[in-house]
Amino acid sequence: MSRPPLTSAAIIAVGSEMLTPTRLDTNSLFITDVLNGLGIDVACKAVVGDDRAELTAHLALALSRHDLVIVTGGLGPTDDDLTREVVAAHLNLPLDEDAEVLAAIERRFAWRGFRMPAVNRRQAQVPRGAEVLPNHNGTAPGLWLETGGRIIVLLPGPPREMKPMLRLIADERLAPRAGGLRIHRRLIRIAGRTESRVEELTQPIYSSWTARTPPIATTILSVPGLIELHLSARSGDAALGAAALDAAVAEIDAVLGPDIVSRDGRSLEEVVGDLLRGRGLRIALAESCTGGLATTRLTDVPGSSDYVERGVVVYSNAAKTDLLGVPADLIAEHGAVSEAVAARMAMAVRTRAGVDIGVGITGIAGPGGGSDDKPVGTVCIAVAAPDARARTFRFPGNRELVRTFSAVTALDMVRRRLEAREADGDWVMPPSGRRGGG
Amino acid sequence: MSRPPLTSAAIIAVGSEMLTPTRLDTNSLFITDVLNGLGIDVACKAVVGDDRAELTAHLALALSRHDLVIVTGGLGPTDDDLTREVVAAHLNLPLDEDAEVLAAIERRFAWRGFRMPAVNRRQAQVPRGAEVLPNHNGTAPGLWLETGGRIIVLLPGPPREMKPMLRLIADERLAPRAGGLRIHRRLIRIAGRTESRVEELTQPIYSSWTARTPPIATTILSVPGLIELHLSARSGDAALGAAALDAAVAEIDAVLGPDIVSRDGRSLEEVVGDLLRGRGLRIALAESCTGGLATTRLTDVPGSSDYVERGVVVYSNAAKTDLLGVPADLIAEHGAVSEAVAARMAMAVRTRAGVDIGVGITGIAGPGGGSDDKPVGTVCIAVAAPDARARTFRFPGNRELVRTFSAVTALDMVRRRLEAREADGDWVMPPSGRRGGG
Repeated sequence: MSRPPLTSAAIIAVGSEMLTPTRLDTNSLFITDVLNGLGIDVACKAVVGDDRAELTAHLALALSRHDLVIVTGGLGPTDDDLTREVVAAHLNLPLDEDAEVLAAIERRFAWRGFRMPAVNRRQAQVPRGAEVLPNHNGTAPGLWLETGGRIIVLLPGPPREMKPMLRLIADERLAPRAGGLRIHRRLIRIAGRTESRVEELTQPIYSSWTARTPPIATTILSVPGLIELHLSARSGDAALGAAALDAAVAEIDAVLGPDIVSRDGRSLEEVVGDLLRGRGLRIALAESCTGGLATTRLTDVPGSSDYVERGVVVYSNAAKTDLLGVPADLIAEHGAVSEAVAARMAMAVRTRAGVDIGVGITGIAGPGGGSDDKPVGTVCIAVAAPDARARTFRFPGNRELVRTFSAVTALDMVRRRLEAREADGDWVMPPSGRRGGG
Repeated sequence: MSRPPLTSAAIIAVGSEMLTPTRLDTNSLFITDVLNGLGIDVACKAVVGDDRAELTAHLALALSRHDLVIVTGGLGPTDDDLTREVVAAHLNLPLDEDAEVLAAIERRFAWRGFRMPAVNRRQAQVPRGAEVLPNHNGTAPGLWLETGGRIIVLLPGPPREMKPMLRLIADERLAPRAGGLRIHRRLIRIAGRTESRVEELTQPIYSSWTARTPPIATTILSVPGLIELHLSARSGDAALGAAALDAAVAEIDAVLGPDIVSRDGRSLEEVVGDLLRGRGLRIALAESCTGGLATTRLTDVPGSSDYVERGVVVYSNAAKTDLLGVPADLIAEHGAVSEAVAARMAMAVRTRAGVDIGVGITGIAGPGGGSDDKPVGTVCIAVAAPDARARTFRFPGNRELVRTFSAVTALDMVRRRLEAREADGDWVMPPSGRRGGG
């Protein structure tokens, strides 16, 4: 094809709910990532409500300036889903009912034991000349239109429907139309360090990368319990881009080694799972303040039944004694939130489940329950494998944040234990001992 | 003043970093909240990079359609901060250096013991006729311009600078121009129904609300396992607005009663918690495929230790037998994913924990483990209180979604049991029996 390569894109998200004080369009992050990967820049993003005139105005503006316009949302079955109609009207295209699309929607309902509600018929309307993008995760098909050298892609709003559809058209339709440059990326995940500490350690290193060939851009992002370093290099030569990023990752490795969870984008849960499966080990967890969050996160990973044997959420002291045999007088002596109790929880769940690794978490997530001695955010975590090592942390933030920090840190302690790379990190409460009793 | 009241606003966020795969404009949520509080709708939001042409195009579009345009960011001292210049150029206004602004910036640096860098002089440039909005938290002043009956407000990008500035102008400048109208809201949460079914049942009702005084706008939103109905009424009379919304909620109640989780924005977890606490009941959960998610969600709520006694995550069959006494031959006869096993799990965890309500969840979250008979998404959930009632569901979507649907549905079954308002919902697999054995 001799068409000039795609260079710039506009993203329009449709839905009045994204113009309220509580909802953001987050689809655009994924879309940007995919387009950047093809060397296509996102020049602007807009959010419009379910409003014909507003959507028309933004569509016209985007088409006047950019060669790729991606519209998400407004493809649902209801009256306020206007995207199909607005795009067709703006391009002067009639809407035809597509028999295949209609049949696919009917099949989808039938599979779940329902008849298709009459309203869903609207989702089979296709602007004449548009190509249908099948939706394997919902009823609304996507649509692909070309007009005057510009491409318009309509995608459903729900992320699990939008994402696979965009991935497919990126590979099959957009990649051949993009230029030679690609953006290459690496994601380094770091645990047990604050954002400022990671910045302090890495800024002297990455600040020189922008002067290299190819230049490497670095972004530091903080998600609860983890710090992410995003590295990107734009290059027409995949091997060159990869080599530059590998060298950069190695430089970070040299200063943050034991704190690095992954260099390939894997989540902490996946890394722990891979370590366990690789060694044929199984794990069991005993959680108090986290209410099952660590077990939930570990079992988020497909196939985790290979290595997760059980979890117990011992929310009451009775449950701690009943399910784990934690002696009431140990709790009375040290308090439910103590390294001794965490260690006993870890050892007991390990022994009772007959597995290799036991985890115990007990703490004060707040907002109530804190004291001068043990304020909200105080959390004791132990890993038994088989000897129990317990540590006390003081996590910042509200209940949700304390619980997330606790679950992430517990999994990271398992990772460090399995990698035999234990280190302090920034989170440990300074006066805390390193080894719990129990 | 006899000017017509402000009705609709556009927000433009300026900054190339917000067009990367990792950063969002979140200022707009705060701005929307403040404007909605004054009865001003946000009609669209845009994010543009540090690009003169793109910003000009979006500014022109916004000014052509809305009477209030709020621009955040691009007021910094560096070359890529273009907002002042672009706005002045678009309105044909010369930029003058403002001596007072310059002095304020110099004082700010002096106070921290620095001399003002030369670049910061740009921040004292003011489009002729604009009013300066002092910045007490940074160097970039805001700017207020009126042109052809439209208002343009330029605010700095950092939230801690933008927020106090917007609060002040909302009180002092926007409120008097906003007219007496305010936006009042209600959020209805619905469980056990698909979005299309909720639409089908409620659309005939809410479609007439827009013709009422005051008119009520309705948005339907789907979050995994729940449907949200967002109602908003614009009224100058708070009592009238509240009464109109109460009447509207009652109409929805009449068709969706048992499926309504809350009418006041409370989450499902909070509703279940309030029901349990109100009756002095305690709960324990036995989870398999959800890996602790239902317990985690229930304990997200502060104070949940009042009613959550324990949870067990019986991921392996051995754990099911060991922790709950589920007979191996029951599993062999019915399969681990069966109403009989779910019911036995619910009854056993209830009895062993010595509580009032037991929950059992067992299913196939995928991606592996499905069969023709029990495909991925098949989940059996039982609530024992004390007799166990089990149901089989077939949830759509990937592992994460199936787990979320399962946890939400389990909690909703508890809610229905406690409210004695059990009904089918759309999720139940049609051929399923309503009562499990065990």
